[in-house]
Amino acid sequence: MTIELLKQRLESTVEQLMNGPNLEKVMTPGFADKRLYAIYLTETYHYTRHNSRNQALIATRPENIDPRYLKFCLRHAEEEVGHELMALHDIKSMGYQVSEESLPKPLNSTITLISYLYHVAQYGDPLARLGYSFWAERSYQYIRPLLNLLSSGLGIEKKAMTFFNEHSEIDIDHAKLVDETINRFAKESKDFEAMGDCLETSLRLTSKMMDEVLEEFIKVKEGKETRYKFLQ
Amino acid sequence: MTIELLKQRLESTVEQLMNGPNLEKVMTPGFADKRLYAIYLTETYHYTRHNSRNQALIATRPENIDPRYLKFCLRHAEEEVGHELMALHDIKSMGYQVSEESLPKPLNSTITLISYLYHVAQYGDPLARLGYSFWAERSYQYIRPLLNLLSSGLGIEKKAMTFFNEHSEIDIDHAKLVDETINRFAKESKDFEAMGDCLETSLRLTSKMMDEVLEEFIKVKEGKETRYKFLQ
Amino acid sequence: MTIELLKQRLESTVEQLMNGPNLEKVMTPGFADKRLYAIYLTETYHYTRHNSRNQALIATRPENIDPRYLKFCLRHAEEEVGHELMALHDIKSMGYQVSEESLPKPLNSTITLISYLYHVAQYGDPLARLGYSFWAERSYQYIRPLLNLLSSGLGIEKKAMTFFNEHSEIDIDHAKLVDETINRFAKESKDFEAMGDCLETSLRLTSKMMDEVLEEFIKVKEGKETRYKFLQ
Amino acid sequence: MTIELLKQRLESTVEQLMNGPNLEKVMTPGFADKRLYAIYLTETYHYTRHNSRNQALIATRPENIDPRYLKFCLRHAEEEVGHELMALHDIKSMGYQVSEESLPKPLNSTITLISYLYHVAQYGDPLARLGYSFWAERSYQYIRPLLNLLSSGLGIEKKAMTFFNEHSEIDIDHAKLVDETINRFAKESKDFEAMGDCLETSLRLTSKMMDEVLEEFIKVKEGKETRYKFLQ
Repeated sequence: MTIELLKQRLESTVEQLMNGPNLEKVMTPGFADKRLYAIYLTETYHYTRHNSRNQALIATRPENIDPRYLKFCLRHAEEEVGHELMALHDIKSMGYQVSEESLPKPLNSTITLISYLYHVAQYGDPLARLGYSFWAERSYQYIRPLLNLLSSGLGIEKKAMTFFNEHSEIDIDHAKLVDETINRFAKESKDFEAMGDCLETSLRLTSKMMDEVLEEFIKVKEGKETRYKFLQ
Repeated sequence: MTIELLKQRLESTVEQLMNGPNLEKVMTPGFADKRLYAIYLTETYHYTRHNSRNQALIATRPENIDPRYLKFCLRHAEEEVGHELMALHDIKSMGYQVSEESLPKPLNSTITLISYLYHVAQYGDPLARLGYSFWAERSYQYIRPLLNLLSSGLGIEKKAMTFFNEHSEIDIDHAKLVDETINRFAKESKDFEAMGDCLETSLRLTSKMMDEVLEEFIKVKEGKETRYKFLQ
Repeated sequence: MTIELLKQRLESTVEQLMNGPNLEKVMTPGFADKRLYAIYLTETYHYTRHNSRNQALIATRPENIDPRYLKFCLRHAEEEVGHELMALHDIKSMGYQVSEESLPKPLNSTITLISYLYHVAQYGDPLARLGYSFWAERSYQYIRPLLNLLSSGLGIEKKAMTFFNEHSEIDIDHAKLVDETINRFAKESKDFEAMGDCLETSLRLTSKMMDEVLEEFIKVKEGKETRYKFLQ
Repeated sequence: MTIELLKQRLESTVEQLMNGPNLEKVMTPGFADKRLYAIYLTETYHYTRHNSRNQALIATRPENIDPRYLKFCLRHAEEEVGHELMALHDIKSMGYQVSEESLPKPLNSTITLISYLYHVAQYGDPLARLGYSFWAERSYQYIRPLLNLLSSGLGIEKKAMTFFNEHSEIDIDHAKLVDETINRFAKESKDFEAMGDCLETSLRLTSKMMDEVLEEFIKVKEGKETRYKFLQ
């Protein structure tokens, strides 16, 4: 098995997920507004806060793992430290009064994503989490058009898009590095299966999180009670 | 907030989940066969294997927790030890040659459920996992008609239904005990929210697992390659 | 190897430890006073607080372990829940104003003992911790004469000795149960080695803790600054 | 409190430990031989194997910690990855036939040191482990004369001293970096106390490990049974 098969699995999963009704709804002119973006950033804050942690977790496992791969994990964890603060910064830049303490707790779907990544990092194939990096580093190519549309459509300023701008720049290099890492360490088909499973599962859970973000936005739009108090 | 609200949340979630197309498909005469039951038991083996572990995990947390609640957790964990072996026994009783070592690994949706329960037990509100017990102990009333139908429709023998028979007996008492435990220890509305969130999320993840079980069964029916080698 | 060898290892370790200069010092008439007992109870509070937790930890380990042994661990953990509160109660019964929040943090030697027991429970041979139970349940026969002397010599009332009275009663039965458990589950010499190592190491670390308790008492006697503020 | 106080605590602890009878014994001409060095390297392999892991562990903790300090931890963990292999290499360079699989398990005192560092990294003050780095990075100035003596006295070749040569070079820079890190992040006296406690405790546990190394060497010298089978 090769990296090509990971790409195919990514594409087929994305295709399935794109076919849901939610994307179309979001893109409908006049539907979304900046509150949707703020809700999305809140959940982004939450899962991003754990990315460095669950990446570092691999380097604490008791068994022997290739030291060069452990170095990759630690370097990658280091790069991800504190990125959640960019998401928080962006929410503030939109004019909302929030702090790490006052943000609402993560949605259940966000917690599920977080839980899954910790579990894989702790107990899965040591290489499995590369499947998450594989799509996450590539995701900004999918997300960018969406963000552009939102930003031009919703008039969100550049200063409130640091998280995504930063990541779409960083991640071209990262994606290359992740590919190299996969090619370097993944030898057996069980490694590719583990990465493919993690890729698909984490992507589906992220999509589920986006569905719940949308539900929460609709509640806000309809004037119902919301956990995102700062929007009011 | 009271236990009544947990019941409402359970009922509204069940109603939503029952409305999916899969239940109807499964109940269509001639559709299911005993292989579906064997696949389901395989995943039941997997998540059940972790129930005692994640229940005990609460009693290892560093913070101070009401000792009487910790005793409940440990007693409950003790009761759940080894229940996965009943599921394994039932697969064998159907005539399949399997062992703990040869069983296929859990499905991604099963891993997601397992991950979530560990995370909640380790980091969530200490009472949150009661939300899982709340519906799990009650679930056999929902599952029983389904099982009856399958068993009479599919001719599965009693000796291959020990897991569910045992649990539907145990669980009448358990459900009462869980209710008492909730009433005894849950004081604040945040406790009920945490239990309600765990209830709904673990139920949805279980439903997702059942969807994937069905997909796997359809693959088997269509003669495609399957991870459940023992079915062949 | 048999349980007899554990007894020999216990006896030879105790003999070595008894030969140190500290025991004699403590027994010298006029040396000790009730503050020594209060300091000792403080550290007893701390390590006891973790005994149930590290016992339960074994039942959360990912690998397959004999379910009957896991049941023993969980039952034993349940019995130990909250025993630290007896030690706290006894300090209060001596007339000191303390609470769980205001107690000084554990001594470094106490933390070392606690750390070791968690590590063994998490990563050691699953049976290893029985070596700790083996001597701990028997310890009250060694400690009792000491306590009697202290209590009659120092005039400590019965109501301030619940922790030790309770345990010396419970522990006759426990010791029998631990022996049976060892005989039932320990099959290979590696199991006995692991239990023997845990026995000796945890006993030495406890002895080290007692040495540090004595040092702290001497500081108090000499009017130096102390972490046990409640003694003043 | 300042870094000066850590130095004082280090010096007073070293002085106490140096006064034990063992150092003199080791330095007595004709007493030691290269087997002592091989035993010491075996235990060095073991605790070093965990240094990167317990350093990385800090960066997996659930609470909010200064991101700049987390980056330090991850960078430091990365540098330490695989250093145990140098110790293994040195044992092999002495002509002994060993591998990671065939090395004897760590001594109880080595396990105690390892356990303590994990516990501090997981549950202690997040800065506490800097106390271990503080002395470990400086230790080579204490150890070097000893090693020189051993190497010239015992005729151990340079190729079997890569672990210590490498570390005494690396660690001049490291020591500076650790000092800067302490000055940068430690603000309150509780931070200095936590670092001081970790400094003293980990140093004492290391000294204890060296005592046990010596005991094991004496057994070998006396022709008794030994766990270091590769020496025969």
